[in-house]
Amino acid sequence: MKLPLALVTALLACTAALTGCTTAPMQDAGMTGPLMIAKQGSFFVGGRDAYSENLSTLPIYAAKGTITLDQMYVHYQVPVNARQVPITLIHGCCLTGTTWETTPDGRMGWDEFFVRQGHPTYLIDQVARGRSAANATAFNAAKTGAGAPAALPTVFAAGHEGAWAIFRFGSEFPKVHPGMQFPLEAQGEFWKQMVPDWSASLPSPNPTVPALSQLAMRLQGTVLMSHSQSGIYPFQAAALTPQGIAAIVAIEPADCPAPDGDLKPYLGMPILVLFGDYVDLAPRWAPRLKKCRAFVAAANQAGGRAEIIVLPERGIKGNSHMIMQDRNSLQVAALLDTWLREHVRPQP
Amino acid sequence: MKLPLALVTALLACTAALTGCTTAPMQDAGMTGPLMIAKQGSFFVGGRDAYSENLSTLPIYAAKGTITLDQMYVHYQVPVNARQVPITLIHGCCLTGTTWETTPDGRMGWDEFFVRQGHPTYLIDQVARGRSAANATAFNAAKTGAGAPAALPTVFAAGHEGAWAIFRFGSEFPKVHPGMQFPLEAQGEFWKQMVPDWSASLPSPNPTVPALSQLAMRLQGTVLMSHSQSGIYPFQAAALTPQGIAAIVAIEPADCPAPDGDLKPYLGMPILVLFGDYVDLAPRWAPRLKKCRAFVAAANQAGGRAEIIVLPERGIKGNSHMIMQDRNSLQVAALLDTWLREHVRPQP
Repeated sequence: MKLPLALVTALLACTAALTGCTTAPMQDAGMTGPLMIAKQGSFFVGGRDAYSENLSTLPIYAAKGTITLDQMYVHYQVPVNARQVPITLIHGCCLTGTTWETTPDGRMGWDEFFVRQGHPTYLIDQVARGRSAANATAFNAAKTGAGAPAALPTVFAAGHEGAWAIFRFGSEFPKVHPGMQFPLEAQGEFWKQMVPDWSASLPSPNPTVPALSQLAMRLQGTVLMSHSQSGIYPFQAAALTPQGIAAIVAIEPADCPAPDGDLKPYLGMPILVLFGDYVDLAPRWAPRLKKCRAFVAAANQAGGRAEIIVLPERGIKGNSHMIMQDRNSLQVAALLDTWLREHVRPQP
Repeated sequence: MKLPLALVTALLACTAALTGCTTAPMQDAGMTGPLMIAKQGSFFVGGRDAYSENLSTLPIYAAKGTITLDQMYVHYQVPVNARQVPITLIHGCCLTGTTWETTPDGRMGWDEFFVRQGHPTYLIDQVARGRSAANATAFNAAKTGAGAPAALPTVFAAGHEGAWAIFRFGSEFPKVHPGMQFPLEAQGEFWKQMVPDWSASLPSPNPTVPALSQLAMRLQGTVLMSHSQSGIYPFQAAALTPQGIAAIVAIEPADCPAPDGDLKPYLGMPILVLFGDYVDLAPRWAPRLKKCRAFVAAANQAGGRAEIIVLPERGIKGNSHMIMQDRNSLQVAALLDTWLREHVRPQP
């Protein structure tokens, strides 16, 4: 893999002293100075109208009426001189689009990084989370007795203690993996990013999947960059239609397509699966990495262009599950940017 | 009121032909061309840790543990050459920070407008809405039988039909007030902005209030610009401490402070209350405007600097409750910008 000349020095210094990585890439051209935005804004993709008699238990808001559900919020930024492929950033479990914004310890997030590298970015909130409406009518039905409590939607919150191991800060709360690069001193800010997760109450595939497909078609070419829970979504979107999907980049996907399944939808686009460190120490993650390795091998055997990068195998050590917020987050982002430049043709 | 010279021509043309207002202000200096951002990002204000045994009903996520609640999401943008006072934009009922982004019909929102006029902006999601976590543990308690369904939190959704009159698109669904300026052809996109509202399940004052106060102190001077449901929040924040509040601008507040109450907290800062059209035709809104008029009069009598603007009384007609999304939204934003330049000293 070749790195852009402007990044080489900083990244070499960064690799040599991992804990000093946070500011080194900032010295590169485009990484400091004003952010030049040609266009920014937000819109929604998808959505359907639904009638309910359980909108409210308050007299000042009518109980009966129509609401809109299953829409996906998209915030976008197009830099001046956008010469690189657009990237759609898709957060994971119990989180929202904030995943890609400022890191918990106040450094530049991947959203701004990619914009500064010339990529338009499209940052989404999964359906039923964040700024994408959830469906609260079953709660009102249960509250008034019109519905059974057992039929309430499954809405879960990840506690700090349980999330600790899932995010691989350590093997269990509050142990810390040696050399782990997540900025734990700012963990309080990270916990504030977490929100209740409605995904288990939604049909499969998650309505976020057709919304991503619609977005890709609208953009006429975007990388779908997933994280964790959303890892399978870009593959499911490709199975709907490969149209508009310029590449798939799966950051620590919770799932990869079955190696012995229908691989055709994935053969026409470059695919990168990326994992951090300590995976073999994590019972939740080791089998996932194993399945992704098998998928990548099977896809390539079938004529595809898939690749898997496990960061410690490349000498980049200490990454937690929250790679985009780790101390070396911009080093990994630069690696992804380089991979995209090598594998995805820029938009005409 | 004096308008900045650069805006006068466009606004005169705009006032003369209200339905043609959407593009006229865009011709002004700073309103086209790249958006030059010195710094952007997001963070949270407030928040507390809470232990629960009802985090999840799924085996893969622990039921017991600690979550963080009552934090307020803030997304900010500081323009290059930020010479004007920072503005904190606070959305209303059943909505999130999207209120101030791109309008439903795709025009520039107030967030970008104010940034282009030199104001740093801080765009929040109210506590328990959007990217600010809600507390879903009571749902899991009811689902498993650990809690009573009647004790479920009050979470309401505003239906399109009921919201129609609340937002004053017309007297009732689907009637339309003559000359009404909300872009109804894009109402589908507007309904997608709506989310379930947890505010009735929260203590009073809403935890958003102390979070706004903390934000104001952190910024050492910001305008608190509210809308609708959040209208009382800046006043409640001022009652906690006036520190950091450079001014209050209440866009169609659902409530103003009692005219016969303690007015001291509001006397040291410029206050503007702004209402649109058709208010006297709306049983929900007419008494609110009346109370706000009485508050402004009482505050001024007590030595304050409060002002009320009812747009049709200034010759600006047709505004719905969603003034920041109406066809003439940038005309009204320019009026507010001028008011701020006249009443609030820029930051040192």
